[in-house]
Amino acid sequence: MKTELSLLALASILGAQLCIAQTNPPVDDWKPCPSNQAGKQYPQYNSEGRVKFRIVAPEAKSVGCTFRESSEFSKGDDGAWYGHTRPLDEGFHYYAIKIDGAEVPDPNSHYFYGSGRWGSAVEVPAKDAAFYALKNVPHGQLREINYLSKSTDKTRHIYVYTPPDYDKSARKRYPVLYLQHGGGEDETGWASQGCTGRIMDNLIAEGKAKPFIIVMENGGVGGPRPTNSAPVAGGPGGRGAFNFSVFEKVVTEDLIPYIDANFRTIAKQPQRAMAGLSMGGMQTRSIAPAHLDKFSHIGVFSGGSIAVSDVKDMAAFKKKVKLVFISYGSKELGTNRVAGARGAFGGDPKENTAALRAAGVNAVFYESPNSAHEWLSWRRSLREIAPLLFKD
Amino acid sequence: MKTELSLLALASILGAQLCIAQTNPPVDDWKPCPSNQAGKQYPQYNSEGRVKFRIVAPEAKSVGCTFRESSEFSKGDDGAWYGHTRPLDEGFHYYAIKIDGAEVPDPNSHYFYGSGRWGSAVEVPAKDAAFYALKNVPHGQLREINYLSKSTDKTRHIYVYTPPDYDKSARKRYPVLYLQHGGGEDETGWASQGCTGRIMDNLIAEGKAKPFIIVMENGGVGGPRPTNSAPVAGGPGGRGAFNFSVFEKVVTEDLIPYIDANFRTIAKQPQRAMAGLSMGGMQTRSIAPAHLDKFSHIGVFSGGSIAVSDVKDMAAFKKKVKLVFISYGSKELGTNRVAGARGAFGGDPKENTAALRAAGVNAVFYESPNSAHEWLSWRRSLREIAPLLFKD
Repeated sequence: MKTELSLLALASILGAQLCIAQTNPPVDDWKPCPSNQAGKQYPQYNSEGRVKFRIVAPEAKSVGCTFRESSEFSKGDDGAWYGHTRPLDEGFHYYAIKIDGAEVPDPNSHYFYGSGRWGSAVEVPAKDAAFYALKNVPHGQLREINYLSKSTDKTRHIYVYTPPDYDKSARKRYPVLYLQHGGGEDETGWASQGCTGRIMDNLIAEGKAKPFIIVMENGGVGGPRPTNSAPVAGGPGGRGAFNFSVFEKVVTEDLIPYIDANFRTIAKQPQRAMAGLSMGGMQTRSIAPAHLDKFSHIGVFSGGSIAVSDVKDMAAFKKKVKLVFISYGSKELGTNRVAGARGAFGGDPKENTAALRAAGVNAVFYESPNSAHEWLSWRRSLREIAPLLFKD
Repeated sequence: MKTELSLLALASILGAQLCIAQTNPPVDDWKPCPSNQAGKQYPQYNSEGRVKFRIVAPEAKSVGCTFRESSEFSKGDDGAWYGHTRPLDEGFHYYAIKIDGAEVPDPNSHYFYGSGRWGSAVEVPAKDAAFYALKNVPHGQLREINYLSKSTDKTRHIYVYTPPDYDKSARKRYPVLYLQHGGGEDETGWASQGCTGRIMDNLIAEGKAKPFIIVMENGGVGGPRPTNSAPVAGGPGGRGAFNFSVFEKVVTEDLIPYIDANFRTIAKQPQRAMAGLSMGGMQTRSIAPAHLDKFSHIGVFSGGSIAVSDVKDMAAFKKKVKLVFISYGSKELGTNRVAGARGAFGGDPKENTAALRAAGVNAVFYESPNSAHEWLSWRRSLREIAPLLFKD
């Protein structure tokens, strides 16, 4: 009896597993991800948003990936390991491959700085991916620059986007947006996975945004390794620890003067904006309102909001601030993450923004549909804020 | 007797192994490599030029690296795997980590495009590393640009170095060097591991080179994936197949006109140079001499030479060509690789250059000391050629 019951239990378990496998077969319309290295056929995504990996590891006991709820990886007919994820949100996701307990980059993907390391990420193209696609329109430049920060006595690394017509005239001057990445990321974030250049090129070509300069700073100060101890690449060196007051000095005393001295900017408060995502949004909320002599437009993406009670002098704020733009991914709203963030950041971002608007501030709330705390929300936030900037 | 002999043989083998281990203990002066990701303590290099790796792979049966003659990797007290290489040449080396048969990037290194893939590389600092170090001098910009190539009907990706004073004046115009990477590499090569920006910033600061613009092109045409199908990064998409005649049209019909239209160049033959390494040197030898109406200075690094017999009209050549610069790493000379190359490239490069000089051409041969077919030879070649360019 006991044995029979056990067998029955086993059959039941096997049946259930079979059932899961049968009711959830991945849709077989796989295509190579645009985040792959050139010529690599894997990872692939399908119409459900699943991502399938192919890893050559002939003697491995187990292969997997860091996406939770992924399928078990198993060897295919060609001897390589295959496995796939659950349906993922559209957009951009950091991950690693696991080989016998080692977490390593996927040899097939491009590499990005996020989650505090250079490593793999996968792009599941969004339905509205055209807005961040490379198109045959006039292109701006993405400039990699080392500049000396006197307040920290260090060389710091930035990217600067200049709009397509910047080099057509020797005289035309431009507004500037200072745009910050999130925690665990660095100045490559907006330049690379943020698709800043493509988004702006496309908006400008469509006449939806004025041409302006965008400055992307490392944002970190201190930390175990100074940012001027860059790799041989001369490129970004990761990010030091966040220290808002030190970074505030960097932005206001070093960076803005450097940009105004080295680019054809309109070096006036009405033509200067600051925005950022997540941690960069917190930096923005901390720095921009404290320097309303310098900034007129404020953007906070997935990084809290500005409550009426945060504003010390509403009359001065209304006079100086031309725009407060607050955004979140719809999937962030109502989750524990944002519930926590709402508390930490001082209340419901949508309600706060409505109250700020009611108080007479040009405050705009944007909710990115079906996206979470990731780059699709922030690419769309840039697309939404850009047309609202510097409208004189 | 038999048993004794066997034991003796075994002891002898063990003794020999012990001997190898004892006579070759790595010098214990390890330091983190400058090619590491920020904050990563491994890989490390020592004064012998060995590189030591640390890989966390708890359940792996074997861990190794792609450097030949490396030590066996074994688990350390912390449970991570450790192993080291033989003494390597100073300079920059691509590699991968092997985990149970899988070849993957080292999670601790920065990533570079070379050997036809994005992956790990390690820098063993050269004794003369100061010339490619980031210093507190005025810095130029490295500009990432997409431009439309009409001859191929594709958007192509380039890096352009502009010297430190480029944006200080709206009127000053500059000579241009077109600088090509090697096979298995792409336009990121010179911009990243080539240290072009740092080398030029330092030379200009010391007054050793005139400020000039440097243009780095992908160089590939055709191939499995067009270069405008770039990753989400908007960055380089690897390299298509080499096709010299198509690339010749790209350079002469698309790239040069684009650069002259979008940068303040001196758009004249005496102020235009072309150089390249390895495959890029072959492209240079193929394209520049065929377009002496466009190029006056020719640089070939580890990519063959120009024999007197290669020159069809010596009188015209001498009139038009202000410099032929040929270089090799000393360790390339006399090896099978270069013996082959010498044959394929038409003779001994040093002798060819001397003969060209005897024929009245300003031909210079440079031999990079103690370096092989790798980036230290080419960084030094840039350092050596730059002061010779555009000397009116």
